[in-house]
Amino acid sequence: MLSTKNIKKLRDQYIGPSFSLSYHEPLHIVKGKGQYLYAIDGKQYLDAVNNISHVGHCHPRILATLEEQNRLLNNNTRYLHDNIVNYAEELTKKLPAKLDVCYFTNSGSESNDLALCMARNYTGSNQTIVIAGAYHGHTKATIEVSPYKFDGPGGAGSPDFVHQIPMPDPYRGKYRSNDGDIALKYADCVQQILDVLHDDNKQVSAFIAEAILGCGGQIFFPEGFLAAASTKVQQTGGLYIADEVQIGFGRVGSNFWGFESENARPDIVTMGKSMGNGHPLSAVVTTKKIADAFNNGMEYFNSFGGNPVSCAVGRAVLKVIEEEKLQANALQVGSYLMDQLNDLKQRHNIIGDVRGRGLFFGIELIKDPEKLTPASDEAEKIANDMKDHGILISTDGPDHNVLKIKPPMVFTNDNTDQLVETLNKVLMEDNFN
Amino acid sequence: MLSTKNIKKLRDQYIGPSFSLSYHEPLHIVKGKGQYLYAIDGKQYLDAVNNISHVGHCHPRILATLEEQNRLLNNNTRYLHDNIVNYAEELTKKLPAKLDVCYFTNSGSESNDLALCMARNYTGSNQTIVIAGAYHGHTKATIEVSPYKFDGPGGAGSPDFVHQIPMPDPYRGKYRSNDGDIALKYADCVQQILDVLHDDNKQVSAFIAEAILGCGGQIFFPEGFLAAASTKVQQTGGLYIADEVQIGFGRVGSNFWGFESENARPDIVTMGKSMGNGHPLSAVVTTKKIADAFNNGMEYFNSFGGNPVSCAVGRAVLKVIEEEKLQANALQVGSYLMDQLNDLKQRHNIIGDVRGRGLFFGIELIKDPEKLTPASDEAEKIANDMKDHGILISTDGPDHNVLKIKPPMVFTNDNTDQLVETLNKVLMEDNFN
Repeated sequence: MLSTKNIKKLRDQYIGPSFSLSYHEPLHIVKGKGQYLYAIDGKQYLDAVNNISHVGHCHPRILATLEEQNRLLNNNTRYLHDNIVNYAEELTKKLPAKLDVCYFTNSGSESNDLALCMARNYTGSNQTIVIAGAYHGHTKATIEVSPYKFDGPGGAGSPDFVHQIPMPDPYRGKYRSNDGDIALKYADCVQQILDVLHDDNKQVSAFIAEAILGCGGQIFFPEGFLAAASTKVQQTGGLYIADEVQIGFGRVGSNFWGFESENARPDIVTMGKSMGNGHPLSAVVTTKKIADAFNNGMEYFNSFGGNPVSCAVGRAVLKVIEEEKLQANALQVGSYLMDQLNDLKQRHNIIGDVRGRGLFFGIELIKDPEKLTPASDEAEKIANDMKDHGILISTDGPDHNVLKIKPPMVFTNDNTDQLVETLNKVLMEDNFN
Repeated sequence: MLSTKNIKKLRDQYIGPSFSLSYHEPLHIVKGKGQYLYAIDGKQYLDAVNNISHVGHCHPRILATLEEQNRLLNNNTRYLHDNIVNYAEELTKKLPAKLDVCYFTNSGSESNDLALCMARNYTGSNQTIVIAGAYHGHTKATIEVSPYKFDGPGGAGSPDFVHQIPMPDPYRGKYRSNDGDIALKYADCVQQILDVLHDDNKQVSAFIAEAILGCGGQIFFPEGFLAAASTKVQQTGGLYIADEVQIGFGRVGSNFWGFESENARPDIVTMGKSMGNGHPLSAVVTTKKIADAFNNGMEYFNSFGGNPVSCAVGRAVLKVIEEEKLQANALQVGSYLMDQLNDLKQRHNIIGDVRGRGLFFGIELIKDPEKLTPASDEAEKIANDMKDHGILISTDGPDHNVLKIKPPMVFTNDNTDQLVETLNKVLMEDNFN
């Protein structure tokens, strides 16, 4: 086994410098179990950030399934196999009735890339509406629709066929909680883009959106915004692509999918991350009509997508979510976490906003209660201090002032107590009010 | 277990119709071992087409490695881990000295997509030179540089920033074996594009090419073409991206990489398919200079890419290739296969051309020896007949008249005998001369 120092050295030498490490002093993690990670020195960390290890690190049932299928057969989709059709059937049963045609891929980025291709094929247009701060992937086509990337460091700005609405952020956005019917106001921003497209004689292709903005800073939209905005797009012949890569599979607690909590009706749903509990697995699900239009003679082939091993793992994840009642757990523990964090907010002025649904939380830190100046440096310090105290969280948002909590779904009330008590201690130690 | 009929029905219902199945009567495969696949009825098939299961289906060493690491930890690249740096070091040692910075991804498509982004960032241009018939992936950006896709059924034609040279095919191409120095003539096609770009005051970004055209029909370029063409691009400040997704990792026998057999010197190498023996694993390797330029402030993050499990599998594949001397096996068996197929060619006029290197072969079928009219229907029938006789091969090329042979690298001389004897029998039965 290499020393931590040697890994750093080799990483500098052999790994692309565009990859980043978490924390000032990066962790050397060697083991995972449930909601815990273990460093080389044996120290245990409570993982409150890894939404990919959805049902818990190294879940025995997922491991057993992977091993069993892998010993039998791994192969591409050009032969018939039980797993892909069983999985597709089980997956679509979790979705609204019309969303029943599956495409299996290897990452959320591949899924969003494919979804954009489908929408462009269906509408004959590439005019795409996105939300400021949104992230949809690392391929060229998905970076083009990710303001988080193209408006961030090193970004090339917005392509001319991509149109942004302001982040529908009730706390620090253009329209705020006390500005009246802000759901309508933000939805009107979509309408304005549609009007301009109409005046320019252009068809809209798609509105792509997460139901809760992840990288944008765990932003919960004003109630009714997503349904209104997506309906406007659909009424002019465009498609609504629901990006469920970060929040799907029961994470929001109240529902299996994020868009359901918003009463929105997607034409295409993309998923990834949590779907295979770490195994590279992702999917696009759409309607028969859109799938048939996409079937224009060009084959879609994906070397690994939909292979028997990936599909077996996907099925096992669905089963574990159900049998261990993880969606209900997310709802219950999330509710408890919300209470605890709201208590903490009373005691620390730096906590400007606490927002969450299920096990997907953001704690927005501010320097002052009037201007709501983002407490970016403080957020970074807190995430690092939390790590030193054995708890892993991250920061995000355009100002990096939002603490993100999105743990494996086996997170408990005791874990919540530990997290909140530690956060309280760190805030007191750092003297951040 | 589902019946074959039921799987077909469920597949029609739940799987995107753009996915295709091999053969008129698709196979229901349930088990794999080495170079063999087994159908639900117990019938054994010799797999002479699956270049993804590089070291053989369900290789025990790969399975053991995957299981061991998976039980310990699977995680993203934001923490330090031995596997990613060990693998990167081992992988770059297989490449020319300057290619020593790795990016790990989940599919060859993701790798080519990323390589194009890097080249565009490095050169400040997206002007890309490609080879007619070439395939580089299924994402939007890779379809844009894949004439196999954009000029094929359902394709939207060439984007204005993509420039094609004719397929450097010595057998049925624009310039043929007896046309003099055809390597130079095809390389001049690249020069002509560079001249036009120069006249238009445009910088070339990249020349992306496989060293042997796979989907284009197993096309082996005239000796010296690839080195000459790529050097011309590099001399005007463009990058040469070597797409090794289909042929890397010793498949060509004489060398570990396809571009080495052509004495070409890539700036970026992309790999996938065989790299993880079926596990979704792929990579981009480039120079420090290009990697540093790409590190412009925009993070590259890939949820699954470079995780400890994928990297463990990648290392195991490298070790098995080395310990089982699979590159040498590809060289020896490939040479034997070449002799056998050339013998067969003497006996059957339909075989117009036999070409191969290591375990990557094409058998081009023609209707007549003068016009070289492609025998497309015959190729399709032969692939189906071979399947009925227990041997899996495929067809490809713009006219679908090329039989493709690219088996797992554990293929033996006995397998070769079986394949060639069966092909002889099928050709005689079908009365195809």
